[in-house]
Amino acid sequence: MGIVVQKYGGSSVADADGIKRVAQRIVDAKRAGHDVVVVVSAMGDTTDELIDLAEQVSPLPAGRELDMLLTAGERISMALLAMAIGNLGQEAQSFTGSQAGVITDSVHGKAKIIDVTPGRIEKALAQGAVAIVAGFQGVSQDTKDITTLGRGGSDTTAVALAAAMDADVCEIYSDVDGVFTADPRIVPSARKRDRISYEEMLEMAASGAKILHLRCVEYARRYQMPIHVRSSFSKRTGTWIAEDAEVEQMEQAIIAGVAHDRSEAKITVVGVPDKVGEAARIFEALSEAGINLDMIVQNVSAAATNLTDISFTLPREDGQKAMAALAQLKDEVGYDSLLYDDRIGKVSLVGAGMRSHPGVTAKFFAALANAGVNIEMISTSEIRISVIVDESQVDDAVAATHTAFDLDSDEVEAVVYGGTGR
Amino acid sequence: MGIVVQKYGGSSVADADGIKRVAQRIVDAKRAGHDVVVVVSAMGDTTDELIDLAEQVSPLPAGRELDMLLTAGERISMALLAMAIGNLGQEAQSFTGSQAGVITDSVHGKAKIIDVTPGRIEKALAQGAVAIVAGFQGVSQDTKDITTLGRGGSDTTAVALAAAMDADVCEIYSDVDGVFTADPRIVPSARKRDRISYEEMLEMAASGAKILHLRCVEYARRYQMPIHVRSSFSKRTGTWIAEDAEVEQMEQAIIAGVAHDRSEAKITVVGVPDKVGEAARIFEALSEAGINLDMIVQNVSAAATNLTDISFTLPREDGQKAMAALAQLKDEVGYDSLLYDDRIGKVSLVGAGMRSHPGVTAKFFAALANAGVNIEMISTSEIRISVIVDESQVDDAVAATHTAFDLDSDEVEAVVYGGTGR
Repeated sequence: MGIVVQKYGGSSVADADGIKRVAQRIVDAKRAGHDVVVVVSAMGDTTDELIDLAEQVSPLPAGRELDMLLTAGERISMALLAMAIGNLGQEAQSFTGSQAGVITDSVHGKAKIIDVTPGRIEKALAQGAVAIVAGFQGVSQDTKDITTLGRGGSDTTAVALAAAMDADVCEIYSDVDGVFTADPRIVPSARKRDRISYEEMLEMAASGAKILHLRCVEYARRYQMPIHVRSSFSKRTGTWIAEDAEVEQMEQAIIAGVAHDRSEAKITVVGVPDKVGEAARIFEALSEAGINLDMIVQNVSAAATNLTDISFTLPREDGQKAMAALAQLKDEVGYDSLLYDDRIGKVSLVGAGMRSHPGVTAKFFAALANAGVNIEMISTSEIRISVIVDESQVDDAVAATHTAFDLDSDEVEAVVYGGTGR
Repeated sequence: MGIVVQKYGGSSVADADGIKRVAQRIVDAKRAGHDVVVVVSAMGDTTDELIDLAEQVSPLPAGRELDMLLTAGERISMALLAMAIGNLGQEAQSFTGSQAGVITDSVHGKAKIIDVTPGRIEKALAQGAVAIVAGFQGVSQDTKDITTLGRGGSDTTAVALAAAMDADVCEIYSDVDGVFTADPRIVPSARKRDRISYEEMLEMAASGAKILHLRCVEYARRYQMPIHVRSSFSKRTGTWIAEDAEVEQMEQAIIAGVAHDRSEAKITVVGVPDKVGEAARIFEALSEAGINLDMIVQNVSAAATNLTDISFTLPREDGQKAMAALAQLKDEVGYDSLLYDDRIGKVSLVGAGMRSHPGVTAKFFAALANAGVNIEMISTSEIRISVIVDESQVDDAVAATHTAFDLDSDEVEAVVYGGTGR
């Protein structure tokens, strides 16, 4: 049998008991004949505690030093996990991101993986040991400084290592049983998917499903590395994320699931002169401020005034920065006013099957209308339809959509659908 | 001005306030024109907390993994310290032992420094930055694994870096004002020494004075690196540890100080046949068990029986192991019985001046006799006399000796004489 890469999140190794439980799972996989590489996050709240310490000594810590600090978290969890495995009679060796050959660029706090050179990991496996690797961290190719990968970093570490080592599968363990057709906290009848395609998972992640981070799924798709998302608290099979073709052979569902996202805000620039270049000037300014926009809508301009409104959504945390950047443009662009609304939510219907089913959009909007949900903005991709609604109507919109597309299970899953850590 | 290496112990950086206070001291030194390299220990109780976690997951953790775990402690303190310095407008970069070029052998938990190659530290200094280095840790030359240096490790890191970089001085900061003529908790009138020779400091450290670890002083003497022991809580000059010649030009005291040690136990092997090789067999067995003995006394054998008693002292923590090793020898050596006593203490009088003052021993014993202290064992070196007494009489013995040699100060120092961390 080949190499299995397993990734355990912070909630799975939150305390000594959790670490011992995970150690047993790892030893089981090793004894089943696999070569096992484990990627681990920091224990429970460790990262938050370290950030709190940093804030106590400096309001704006240097990125290099913040990365040095935060990487202590995985150092602790990986060493403890290696000890716990050793205690079960199986040799284990822990490796920092740098030791594991996770080479990144030099952007502290959100470094990108450039290369993976897992020579020491391969040596450990050849010696019969389990290799434990710190997630979320690497070493800069240029400066040799320690870097962190930012959000979704540990999942990405796992997929990158799996790809570099040509593993059979990358198993991502958390406190969730897999990918569901909707958040079971909102829709108790949501069903776990057995398989989902990379493409659908990308759209789900981009639409707010917190089970896997976008960049990790992108990485897996690029290298065609199958991901198995499952719970570290049970032995059940989770959700396999794999190539479209494989998934489509298995199941022909039109809809993969309903995702939602409450992390965005909406800005409207009112009364923009409808001239060539005005809209471009606005989006240039936002881009220079380092802000990633999500949905963008421009109304047809009113014939009488030749003015138009431009609305877009963005992460709430960037709201202030965006408003400041736009305010500076007022004289240059000559718009009327700016509107800011952070009491919105996004509801998205995702499914590769909707390509060949033209009635999906109409059915979606009808379900929302029947539930009394008002649509503020619409955006579509080939396999996704997203709408912006009032934040207070997100739950109703998700439930109504789920039911309308016959996604409800007969049984109610007893599961907590939590976010993944880093 | 040249390079100054400063080492701060765990009590000096126990919390955010401590870290900020230390950061200010470092910036002051930098602004005074020095190139500053700082070696830092883990914050307060961090090491104990990590050891506690390790014990929760494994009763006997692998040395490699325990070192990986414990080195997270300095990683946290050094990054926080660098941030706090940055917050004062001075650039600072933190470096792990490995990054700082602290090359060791592969003995996990008590690695020895083989070489120091501080290229990255020199580069940071050349850029005008303060370099912060994790104490207590290095990287194995052979396996490239992370190692820890064991007790006194951070002090040794500081002295080794100072020697490798040809620093002007190695300043060791703790919560103590310097080296005292006796522990001020026992002798409130103890005086701080302004200077003390390496030789005297070595004997003081070997005799139980906790202010500096033996190996750090040995390292400093080998490289003739002056050490300045001082408090991070005050601006006062502490104690300079330097070459004998320099010290003797300054002050001609007969006695450097009175040290004591409550960490030892005494074992007596009763009725050993006084034949060639019997004693050697006993000490061989103890050496094979990895036990370091301190004082050894063999009585003249009684003429009638041709049997002798052999007594020695050793660290209490090795008592059980030593008794077990000796018990296995009973038939082979044919001794009568073993006695074990861990209610002893050692009191030592240290001073280079006693070389030329033959009356010191007599005066020491007279002082002990007047104080009603019974002497159980005696051991001497050229500049030290040590006696083993009942543990309950240690304080009386120290105080009486201190007074007899006119070491008492007119003023009582308001100081807490604590142990150093790692």
